Amino acid sequence: MSYDNYLKKYESKTGKSRKMYSKAAGIFPGGISHNIRFFDPYPFFVNSARGKYLHDIDGNRYTDYWMGHWAMILGHSPSAVSSVLAKQVKNGTLYGVANDASVELGAAIQKFFPRAEMMRFSSTGSEATMYAVRLARAKTGRRVIAKAIGGWHGFNTTLMQTVNYPFEAEEGPGLVQDEGQYVESIQFNNLESSLKVLETVKDDLACIIIEPVLGGAGGIPPEKGYLQGLQEFAKRNDIIFILDEIVTGFRISPNGAASEYGLEPDLFTLGKIVGGGLPIGVVCGNKEIMSLADPISKPDKVARCAIGGGTFSANPVTMAAGLATLDYIKKNKASLYPKINRLGDMARKGLSKIFSEAGIPCQVTGTHSLFLTHFVKNNQSVVNALDVATSNKKKLVQYHMALMAEHGIFFLPTKMGAISNAHEESDVKKLLSATQKIVDSGLLKQT
Amino acid sequence: MSYDNYLKKYESKTGKSRKMYSKAAGIFPGGISHNIRFFDPYPFFVNSARGKYLHDIDGNRYTDYWMGHWAMILGHSPSAVSSVLAKQVKNGTLYGVANDASVELGAAIQKFFPRAEMMRFSSTGSEATMYAVRLARAKTGRRVIAKAIGGWHGFNTTLMQTVNYPFEAEEGPGLVQDEGQYVESIQFNNLESSLKVLETVKDDLACIIIEPVLGGAGGIPPEKGYLQGLQEFAKRNDIIFILDEIVTGFRISPNGAASEYGLEPDLFTLGKIVGGGLPIGVVCGNKEIMSLADPISKPDKVARCAIGGGTFSANPVTMAAGLATLDYIKKNKASLYPKINRLGDMARKGLSKIFSEAGIPCQVTGTHSLFLTHFVKNNQSVVNALDVATSNKKKLVQYHMALMAEHGIFFLPTKMGAISNAHEESDVKKLLSATQKIVDSGLLKQT
Repeated sequence: MSYDNYLKKYESKTGKSRKMYSKAAGIFPGGISHNIRFFDPYPFFVNSARGKYLHDIDGNRYTDYWMGHWAMILGHSPSAVSSVLAKQVKNGTLYGVANDASVELGAAIQKFFPRAEMMRFSSTGSEATMYAVRLARAKTGRRVIAKAIGGWHGFNTTLMQTVNYPFEAEEGPGLVQDEGQYVESIQFNNLESSLKVLETVKDDLACIIIEPVLGGAGGIPPEKGYLQGLQEFAKRNDIIFILDEIVTGFRISPNGAASEYGLEPDLFTLGKIVGGGLPIGVVCGNKEIMSLADPISKPDKVARCAIGGGTFSANPVTMAAGLATLDYIKKNKASLYPKINRLGDMARKGLSKIFSEAGIPCQVTGTHSLFLTHFVKNNQSVVNALDVATSNKKKLVQYHMALMAEHGIFFLPTKMGAISNAHEESDVKKLLSATQKIVDSGLLKQT
Repeated sequence: MSYDNYLKKYESKTGKSRKMYSKAAGIFPGGISHNIRFFDPYPFFVNSARGKYLHDIDGNRYTDYWMGHWAMILGHSPSAVSSVLAKQVKNGTLYGVANDASVELGAAIQKFFPRAEMMRFSSTGSEATMYAVRLARAKTGRRVIAKAIGGWHGFNTTLMQTVNYPFEAEEGPGLVQDEGQYVESIQFNNLESSLKVLETVKDDLACIIIEPVLGGAGGIPPEKGYLQGLQEFAKRNDIIFILDEIVTGFRISPNGAASEYGLEPDLFTLGKIVGGGLPIGVVCGNKEIMSLADPISKPDKVARCAIGGGTFSANPVTMAAGLATLDYIKKNKASLYPKINRLGDMARKGLSKIFSEAGIPCQVTGTHSLFLTHFVKNNQSVVNALDVATSNKKKLVQYHMALMAEHGIFFLPTKMGAISNAHEESDVKKLLSATQKIVDSGLLKQT
């Protein structure tokens, strides 16, 4: 079946979404409020999400593997969370003052992440990473920030560098060149070249900030020794080592990637899962560094590292959702993680096998409950963002559209999939059989 | 009554909060997730907010004039909003994809603000202002941003300049000096000196971003002609005029300060009220400028202004809360605004009279439903952030603590108060009689 036929199928079942999109395009640039949420020919519009399903305004149901930017580890609207929220929203959504729920959530995070000696809540991950690098600069008095090529830490001005391919080109107008001069980028999974770059800037190097698994850049796990090598370099040179666990925290293990890979970051950031589906970011870590932001011991603004907060920080709705989620994880981690990791493994292996048997060169990356297919040349291995960016993205878009159009299975085109607690083995089996059918239809041979 | 006695009274009724604070101080720098939420000797901890009331964990009830950073214009947990939210949280909190509720809220905003030709949702006001100045730089190809001394646009790195007194000093370690070099600050309400500063940088001036009423800096309304003069300078020199309406939008009029003061900003930002008590920021304005962020007409990253978005942007809980709030405002604006403005006026006049009759030099600033007392020397007028910063803040802290300790009335110490729809004339009368008692106790004469 040709791509055009899949597109026609999609369009035939999403007539209301097509109309809604044309309205949306008159209100929002590109019709969306996040660039990656647009896909050709137009995205479907959702009005409900429960368990593993997204429901669109045309009445279609999709088995969701995007799961709210990978945040909904318990599925959409899990009753353990939604029942708590239904009460909380009648009891206040924005106190704007100190509240006991924030202390409870902070204490709960510390139980999972003992290295969160202190922390501060913000409302987005982008704010948390911005504050983390600000704290690192404050602590060291140095200016340079090292990040991975393709590394994604949100839309904040400081870290909005070398995100998209071609990585060496600027990330668009409006970002002042001077702002980029203190960001150095390193090649993920290439320790030798990374250390070489770090060595050249180490005298002015404040921190290394890195996702333990490259998320937005394509679901790439770290090769053995890579993150440890960066950490060792940081410790040796009194550079702050920041692990961005916004995707991996409570995802690849209840204790995050730091625990899984034996890392000891000075600072780390959380988001997504820890907010239970409500807006959150958390900057956490070493007490001495975090205390640079303490308004009490440092009442003089010139001595204090100015980090938010913000109007919505520690709001009781997010706190309640986060608490309910962490409580569920605490009680069920012994079954939850083995289950989602097993399904992730089943998806990676099953997809690899199907494409391999069909003679379609591909690599399925990811780890634990995260996975993503890359159509590569000659079974080339995918170990960094450049490998992902130069793979056949057009083919991946077509594969993901075919899943959506014909099989009611949703991946945000080209983005990593995530298994939630709401997914079952039968879902992965359906994903595999749908993939087999798409392969059999000849679509992926055509481009 | 001495300040010590008021403090003892506060401490005697907040024993559980004192214990909770000592726990919080072991988790969060300063025990809070927003610097301004700390006050001496420790903040009370809230576990419920309904209508005009905050309820703390010791069972105390406070009539709230802080109202969630002035966001809760309908009061806390208004049934028109909470009933919608109670349903929404069972129907999804984070779709992570296009959704019809975001289109509805966008269209509703356009009805109130026709100048919102296009917009993008983010999750915080700080993100919205960051994106606004990024768009302005992208549009003009220039670098300098002008802001008011004491102007508050959130914790983003770009605009975190000249916020706190002494304004000329840096806003603390961790903010790289180079980042501040493109921010020029002007004296609010002094058009002559402002234009002089703007003139010196106009060749590289991308935008002027300004709060129409200085909010965090002390509730200072614009003098006649000031904002118009800035706007005229901007239009004459092809500089983007950005109005930060995060506080004033839906507050001083349902159509914002732009409508109230006859302004025509190229871009403007919304937040707080428009999210109905859930996290939100919105950057809005001229279609041509907003379109610089369009990922469809500008697929090449080098041509496109990179703005978020973010994981939580346009999430259905915020969209539902915002829609329910705007719907309420639409139906009730003819009674809502006259009421809260009248109570604001009553508070300003009543407080002025009490302090004046007691011979305590003071000026009560604010406008419409916003108000704040400043204890000044010799009835000096308060027209900019410097006047506020050099007023007697210690006395203001004591006044606000006395209201809290003895009368169950809450202002976040030194911060502006806001009237909500849940407040009645009897509340303002209580505020005035409490103030009279505090004055009579001799507290405010002592320092």
